[in-house]
Amino acid sequence: MLSRHVADKLQNYETPFYLYDIDLLRRTLESVVYESAKHNYKVHYAIKANYDDHILGIIREYGLGIDCASGNEVRKALEMGFDPKGIVYAGVGKRDKELRYAIAQKILAINCESLEELFLVDELSKEAGCKTDVALRINPDIDPKTNHCIDTGQADSKFGISYEEVLERVSDIQALENINIIGLHLHIGSQIRELHVFENMCEKVNVIVANLDSLGFNLRFVDVGGGLGINYDVPENEPIPNFASLFSIVNQYLSVGDREVHFEFGRSIVGECGELITKVLFNKTTATGRRLVIVDASMTELVRPAMYGSYHNIENITSQEELRSKYTVVGTACESTDVFDENVSLRKTKRGDLLTIKSAGAYGMSMASRYNLHDLPSAVYSDEI
Amino acid sequence: MLSRHVADKLQNYETPFYLYDIDLLRRTLESVVYESAKHNYKVHYAIKANYDDHILGIIREYGLGIDCASGNEVRKALEMGFDPKGIVYAGVGKRDKELRYAIAQKILAINCESLEELFLVDELSKEAGCKTDVALRINPDIDPKTNHCIDTGQADSKFGISYEEVLERVSDIQALENINIIGLHLHIGSQIRELHVFENMCEKVNVIVANLDSLGFNLRFVDVGGGLGINYDVPENEPIPNFASLFSIVNQYLSVGDREVHFEFGRSIVGECGELITKVLFNKTTATGRRLVIVDASMTELVRPAMYGSYHNIENITSQEELRSKYTVVGTACESTDVFDENVSLRKTKRGDLLTIKSAGAYGMSMASRYNLHDLPSAVYSDEI
Repeated sequence: MLSRHVADKLQNYETPFYLYDIDLLRRTLESVVYESAKHNYKVHYAIKANYDDHILGIIREYGLGIDCASGNEVRKALEMGFDPKGIVYAGVGKRDKELRYAIAQKILAINCESLEELFLVDELSKEAGCKTDVALRINPDIDPKTNHCIDTGQADSKFGISYEEVLERVSDIQALENINIIGLHLHIGSQIRELHVFENMCEKVNVIVANLDSLGFNLRFVDVGGGLGINYDVPENEPIPNFASLFSIVNQYLSVGDREVHFEFGRSIVGECGELITKVLFNKTTATGRRLVIVDASMTELVRPAMYGSYHNIENITSQEELRSKYTVVGTACESTDVFDENVSLRKTKRGDLLTIKSAGAYGMSMASRYNLHDLPSAVYSDEI
Repeated sequence: MLSRHVADKLQNYETPFYLYDIDLLRRTLESVVYESAKHNYKVHYAIKANYDDHILGIIREYGLGIDCASGNEVRKALEMGFDPKGIVYAGVGKRDKELRYAIAQKILAINCESLEELFLVDELSKEAGCKTDVALRINPDIDPKTNHCIDTGQADSKFGISYEEVLERVSDIQALENINIIGLHLHIGSQIRELHVFENMCEKVNVIVANLDSLGFNLRFVDVGGGLGINYDVPENEPIPNFASLFSIVNQYLSVGDREVHFEFGRSIVGECGELITKVLFNKTTATGRRLVIVDASMTELVRPAMYGSYHNIENITSQEELRSKYTVVGTACESTDVFDENVSLRKTKRGDLLTIKSAGAYGMSMASRYNLHDLPSAVYSDEI
């Protein structure tokens, strides 16, 4: 995604840094807004994917809501000027102080993930002298057929309330006087590329909504989560995820009357617009003959390869060599797992070359650490260079 | 390791927090100092394990050197008052600015991990108008028989220069006029519990040192690294690692004349003195019958279980119940991998109970992140409560 023109300018910045293609971010946002408007769907941005101020400011321009996973994320969204009535707050473990804060902010909904939490929100709302809008996050028991590290909707996962438990405790739940259960929330996982998985989800949601309806719940919205994958393999082939296909499937299979339908997109909005630019420090060859390229980034800036074995496409953006070789690209951290990828085909690569590690806009900066006392990564935005 | 007395006081602190047993840290330091003095061995503390100021201040009292993995770690060690001549700086990917800084500080040695780095240190030293003491970090090609994520000394790993490459380039290396090669550095891995592995290492080192000696290198010290494991399974059985056994093996098998012998210990010094104290937020049962305990800590405070599948012993320190149950202990992060352990036998556990996640003094706080915008964990020191 990087033009030659931009690549030349990058030499001026101290590596490693995240480079954000703001034009691509805008086109992605235009796509999701345009496609969702066709069906009157509401879209929340999952702020955990990337909470960079510049990025959030642009996302706000497009009118998206925010999906939060902590009290600090709710605070951040409000500080960045997002409308409280566009903010949902999910998370299996919310502290009392986080719940009190969210209750006071009168956000769109607190998505409760256990019965204990539901009862607690009721109690804390009573304390606060108000009635709080909540959604039930139900565990739909669906295998998203993706990396098991990032699935969230299987019966055994930590996320959501089991549907059976809701059914068993209907009268207790409906007796709670300080909450309004206005929504249903599900999320089956992340980085889903086989969209037919969503058909199954829709059918489950239809059943759950119909049942809850007949039990006297009065749901105003159904939040079907997110999970739309991006193309890590060849990002150039699909810089903007196919929101239209997902919406079309949901439109075809979901049957929840005139209730609002909400989505939560994180990776699919910001994943492709970010890349990690890093400089080659050294080359060396191991005793086994493996050719290593040692770059100045590491797992402290981008932990996904080390933590999940995730693939990111890597390219040498400054080498002019025609010849390519296979390299193992490793980071600076004193940690064996700090390897970005093995057997990467790169133009002949030498000290001083710049590499890009693509599709790093989501879960890159937001998962950074200061291990080895590394500085946190900086960012360069295409609209500012 | 936690007395009832201390456990009661912990209710006053906001969870989650690291609790450091400073008495145990001191006894550990006394042990390593006492045992190393018997053989006149020099010990460096691997600051990457934990760079907390209070901890570093105590370690400094015992006269240890510091093993660094980045320029910022060198800076931190100097700021904390450690003697530059006790500081070694290893790392596969050192930036020019980090090398320039280390050269200017006249530390004990820069441990070079590639020939390119060696030539660069020579060049930068020339620029600085000085001669820099360096060590060769050689990859010894030893399988430490531990978690493959934390081994560092196999021929295929990213660490160190291959010994063969050094042999091939002896004359080039010896022609460098702005460096003194004063040491040999090896490190075979981390969390090694089968100490016989170190016998093999010593024998390799003997051969390498004898060869380098005959080639005209004039090594003043041999740094055999660290790697001594701790008892994650039952920390109470072995709160202080058996430094004596390791030193005894090295004393028996290492044969490097009157050269100084250096060790680098991180985990074995601070691992057992730290634990992560966390509060139970909610209990719930999944549709599959799995009993979950949701605590207010997460992978953002302690990433080892999520990243490496590492085991940490967990205990309920406030429950008075005789009855035990099996629980899966999960964290607050919006991430499926954020599970501290499955099938943990705990005293009957309810909301508000405090759990301790033990042996978290090393690679806990130092690997923390702000994912989900979580606050960084705070610390409580036993000598301050």
